[in-house]
Amino acid sequence: MNEVLSVIKNRTSLRKYDKKEIREEHLNEVLESAMRAPTAGNMMFYSILVIKDKDKKEILSKTCDNQPFIASAPVVLIFLADLQRQYDYYEASGVEEYCRKNNMDYTAPGKGDFLLGCSDALIAAQNAVITAEALSIGSCYIGDVMENYEKHREILNLPDYTFPICMLALGYYEEDAKKIIKPRFDKKYIVFDEEYKRLNREEFKEMYRENEKFVVKGNKFNADNFGQLIYGRKSGSNFMKEMNRSVEAALKFWDTHKIEN
Amino acid sequence: MNEVLSVIKNRTSLRKYDKKEIREEHLNEVLESAMRAPTAGNMMFYSILVIKDKDKKEILSKTCDNQPFIASAPVVLIFLADLQRQYDYYEASGVEEYCRKNNMDYTAPGKGDFLLGCSDALIAAQNAVITAEALSIGSCYIGDVMENYEKHREILNLPDYTFPICMLALGYYEEDAKKIIKPRFDKKYIVFDEEYKRLNREEFKEMYRENEKFVVKGNKFNADNFGQLIYGRKSGSNFMKEMNRSVEAALKFWDTHKIEN
Repeated sequence: MNEVLSVIKNRTSLRKYDKKEIREEHLNEVLESAMRAPTAGNMMFYSILVIKDKDKKEILSKTCDNQPFIASAPVVLIFLADLQRQYDYYEASGVEEYCRKNNMDYTAPGKGDFLLGCSDALIAAQNAVITAEALSIGSCYIGDVMENYEKHREILNLPDYTFPICMLALGYYEEDAKKIIKPRFDKKYIVFDEEYKRLNREEFKEMYRENEKFVVKGNKFNADNFGQLIYGRKSGSNFMKEMNRSVEAALKFWDTHKIEN
Repeated sequence: MNEVLSVIKNRTSLRKYDKKEIREEHLNEVLESAMRAPTAGNMMFYSILVIKDKDKKEILSKTCDNQPFIASAPVVLIFLADLQRQYDYYEASGVEEYCRKNNMDYTAPGKGDFLLGCSDALIAAQNAVITAEALSIGSCYIGDVMENYEKHREILNLPDYTFPICMLALGYYEEDAKKIIKPRFDKKYIVFDEEYKRLNREEFKEMYRENEKFVVKGNKFNADNFGQLIYGRKSGSNFMKEMNRSVEAALKFWDTHKIEN
């Protein structure tokens, strides 16, 4: 099998890392690959923060839904949607005056810009993940970095037009690491021809048949089926409430619709 | 060089495709790789639409900022952030009643869920891109699929809790295709240690030195420098206004905060 496909198909989230540091040339390869990712208009609407500081990793392990393994990762990468650099550049280029002279609106970045920035950042992150994997460096995405926006703003020195859309914990596989490749849902429930298709009860029953087996009587979520269990554990959880609140707060900073000097 | 790194480093956006159809086994590999991507809680908050219909591709080539090459791609993939399937499943699992019995809020997906869906979709898309490239299938991201939300909703049959976060045009490289690998900004402007760093005028001058050379006197944007040029061509353009409008409209549908039956 093609090596690229093999790496992609055998990649799994790693949460337990070998203690050794990541070699600088390996980290550099990971970052260079990230930066080769396609990006909107070649503008690179993202930045990457490399976190090695022990105290900062400790804080992040708490602010990102209390996951101690984060602090044990030799390197943590935070991918920011970043329109701040672009708008600071516009400021340095006299764009406001240019707009006035040419009778154009000088508009602050909107929600479309925000999502372009998130897109650039995530596409770059996945290049980093695949490259890391090819170098025997395991990784785990932590979407929980979207929580506690105000706190992350403070400890990461984030200006208004940046947003931490994802974080990666990185570290080498331990020598005796065992990979467990988790199954995905069947393609027929995820991939549709020409237009979206909503699923019916029979299809859901079939789709979740395997998951349903893991629901035990008297589970701590008091759930009768997997749908209830996953709602209790994920969508209805406190961390999800916090993520939803935090993203709204971040969008408000984004929405100030003024240009900072 | 490791084959994975080689594919990533030599990948570039392809906008001119060989006329031959994409082989079904190749398309299948691309989709299977996409589905191996990491996803929040293994819930796969995304769906993929496979567009081959000529008329639909024609429409998309117009609604996505008038880019005729889109219609010439043998296959177009649209990646949706998708919480609709999850909430339809909750509906089928009696989660509302479960919440009532257990004194929990039954909440509609929020903006955090929205961004988790976008994240899952984009990470999967980049797996598709890299796998395609390894199979000699070129690709181009089209973020413009975020524009004209109402129209895309209609032609793609999208319910409220889905959003088309990115599109890929796919096709084999032509035999005489020449790859031009575009430079990226220097790492020191994109990657920061421990916290975010805003750049100053001197740094911007250095960062954009190469781009500045392409600004010719009397350019159609009436720009004196590259910052003004890129604002006129991108951030201040009509397509960006439309993208910002469209995303706001999509978020309003998302924000209805009711559960559809």
